[in-house]
Amino acid sequence: MKHLQERQLVSADLCQGSFLHVLRDTVELSNGSLSTREYVVHPGAVMVVPLLEDVDGQLRLVLERQFRYPLRQVIIEFPAGKIDPGEDPFHCARRELREETGYQANFWARAGLLHPVVAYSTEAIDIWFARGLIAGERRLDEDEMLDVFTATPSELMGWCRDGLVTDAKTLVAALWLQNVLSGAWELDWSDSVAGESNGK
Amino acid sequence: MKHLQERQLVSADLCQGSFLHVLRDTVELSNGSLSTREYVVHPGAVMVVPLLEDVDGQLRLVLERQFRYPLRQVIIEFPAGKIDPGEDPFHCARRELREETGYQANFWARAGLLHPVVAYSTEAIDIWFARGLIAGERRLDEDEMLDVFTATPSELMGWCRDGLVTDAKTLVAALWLQNVLSGAWELDWSDSVAGESNGK
Repeated sequence: MKHLQERQLVSADLCQGSFLHVLRDTVELSNGSLSTREYVVHPGAVMVVPLLEDVDGQLRLVLERQFRYPLRQVIIEFPAGKIDPGEDPFHCARRELREETGYQANFWARAGLLHPVVAYSTEAIDIWFARGLIAGERRLDEDEMLDVFTATPSELMGWCRDGLVTDAKTLVAALWLQNVLSGAWELDWSDSVAGESNGK
Repeated sequence: MKHLQERQLVSADLCQGSFLHVLRDTVELSNGSLSTREYVVHPGAVMVVPLLEDVDGQLRLVLERQFRYPLRQVIIEFPAGKIDPGEDPFHCARRELREETGYQANFWARAGLLHPVVAYSTEAIDIWFARGLIAGERRLDEDEMLDVFTATPSELMGWCRDGLVTDAKTLVAALWLQNVLSGAWELDWSDSVAGESNGK
């Protein structure tokens, strides 16, 4: 793939906010010409797909509603959050699930990875499934406002089809969920403790 | 959902690059406290899922391989591109398909919308399907390097499962494709001319 490659010549800060860090690099393209690439440097994130077994054995999903300021909209999402410096993604998955929803999970499986914006961010989101949920108390940051609710897989799929779910990571979670529930894709579940050592 | 809402107090440029425009707003949260929100202002984009009927009637998908500098990786993607100022999304879909792959399509259907990064970008991607493809010549920008190739739907699904496809918009396209091909989700196809007037 050498004919597609781009080579870094210079890298400089375009801006450093309190949340967003943007770089502007000068690159050499494979045809020898120069170009610039501007992109957000991101620490990475984790999304959790929490599977809740109802008292009657029916599967429900734990979801969130959160106001997303850039879109000026309340968005339906699976629990997710940024990885802390030096944090293991599996640790982050357990922490975010507990902080945002109060749930702890006995069984975990890593599904895969997604890149939300390949054109202008280094962000990668690790996708985890959680089951064997035990309810507990949420520990939201003081200024973190979000609603937790549950839905059936078929409700979620309907919302994806009808445009009520537009968050890319949550739509990707729906792809995983559909194929896991149909048996087409397999997850490698492990218990919370074993998962931790695998994840490290 | 008033308890989730955030209200803009001040908006200011954090930086203005040649490609990325980043704002930093001061907002009032629903609990009355102040916070800042930093985010990329994006004109919106379009993705096309081009369905190619083989000579033997088998369905193939038109895909691209492109070096994505922020990730320092060659990424597999469906054709996509930014909407020009004042451009209609359907016009953008036809333009990007023709420029990047050379194909023109007789039939078009709008599937939905996705938001790649709800936390820090206003970007929305319109999802279109195209069929009745007629091959023609690509018109890439001088410094645009990408490979066009085809794959079967089951090859694509395997790559999504195995982590060879990690681009969020392409994974969301796979969700649409799987449900359209199974008959679970319906598309409203129209021919190129009718589609144009619908899209406007």
